[in-house]
Amino acid sequence: MTPKKKTKGTLIVLSGPSGAGKSTVTAELLSERDDIYFSVSFTTRKPRVGEADGVNYHFVSKEEFEGMIERGELLEYAQYVENYYGTSLKVIEEHLNAGTDVLLEIEVQGAATVKQKCPEAVLIFVMPPSFEELSRRLHGRATDDEAVIQGRLERALEEYRQIPLYDYLVINDSVPNATQEIMSILVAEGCRVKQRLPMFQTGAN
Amino acid sequence: MTPKKKTKGTLIVLSGPSGAGKSTVTAELLSERDDIYFSVSFTTRKPRVGEADGVNYHFVSKEEFEGMIERGELLEYAQYVENYYGTSLKVIEEHLNAGTDVLLEIEVQGAATVKQKCPEAVLIFVMPPSFEELSRRLHGRATDDEAVIQGRLERALEEYRQIPLYDYLVINDSVPNATQEIMSILVAEGCRVKQRLPMFQTGAN
Repeated sequence: MTPKKKTKGTLIVLSGPSGAGKSTVTAELLSERDDIYFSVSFTTRKPRVGEADGVNYHFVSKEEFEGMIERGELLEYAQYVENYYGTSLKVIEEHLNAGTDVLLEIEVQGAATVKQKCPEAVLIFVMPPSFEELSRRLHGRATDDEAVIQGRLERALEEYRQIPLYDYLVINDSVPNATQEIMSILVAEGCRVKQRLPMFQTGAN
Repeated sequence: MTPKKKTKGTLIVLSGPSGAGKSTVTAELLSERDDIYFSVSFTTRKPRVGEADGVNYHFVSKEEFEGMIERGELLEYAQYVENYYGTSLKVIEEHLNAGTDVLLEIEVQGAATVKQKCPEAVLIFVMPPSFEELSRRLHGRATDDEAVIQGRLERALEEYRQIPLYDYLVINDSVPNATQEIMSILVAEGCRVKQRLPMFQTGAN
């Protein structure tokens, strides 16, 4: 048996409530694993101050987004208030086919769609160590009023009910710990028989 | 949601051909993770020079072993030539129920039995980087004659056919790498939703 080059990348989906620290953990993970492609979502919402096109989001018009939906170019998409958010199927597939691992940071509905379309995707839910801690973090931000925070906490509870859809649950008690757990998950997924066995050919019989 | 103590340990099964380096990797793993209980098998074969009862094996008589079989006290057992080899169900269960991870180093038939009886067991197959390397290692030992080595190589090919039964495939190209991969697998298994979610209780609704 002779090892072959990894033929397909792993699709990694990261979700979790607002306040779980997904962005911080993602940034840490990408600094440790610069071979991972982080998928930038498409959105129709306007850029906020400091956001750059192609970095935080690909900012497109409503017409452009609806064209992508019609042409089946999106792996998943969702609509919030009046804005669309979605993931380009083409971009993801290009990277996966080139053997690159791809990371998506999307919400639970999107994650469910991805799992349905790509059963081999690895779904990771990131949550804070307790609900009280989540509340503390959201209040600590001091950028949102109480009604917005309460809405986020209620939404978090709804998201928690979807955890059984996920493969892994990472508790973000500290960013290094959570990052380390996600890195271990990625190493382990690379060791899965269904992932690794096709890399070998029997050369001995 | 409040975290609870881990209620049940993970049963880890390690297999691989003679010459894959299982024992070296196991020793390295146990030195890194001294909270893992390494299951010592029972056998009816006579101790070799340097082997100690309760360390390498629990050495028992044929009558004692057959008594264990009759009383259903073995998780798995196999017979080679005229000797029995088996794993005590009771000892394993005591450790798992106490929340301790348990490591079994057993051959492929035993692993298949364990997976059937304990579907939540984590099966890891350790193999050398190539068949040529396996042959080189077995020849390098210089303790066995060519017929014994050829028998081991043939047996290795038979074992390779059982790899799809396993969850993970670890290539032992270097002991530190292989150990690191197994440690990552154990961390990842601890993050599995089915393992971790029962540790939380909803305290917020």
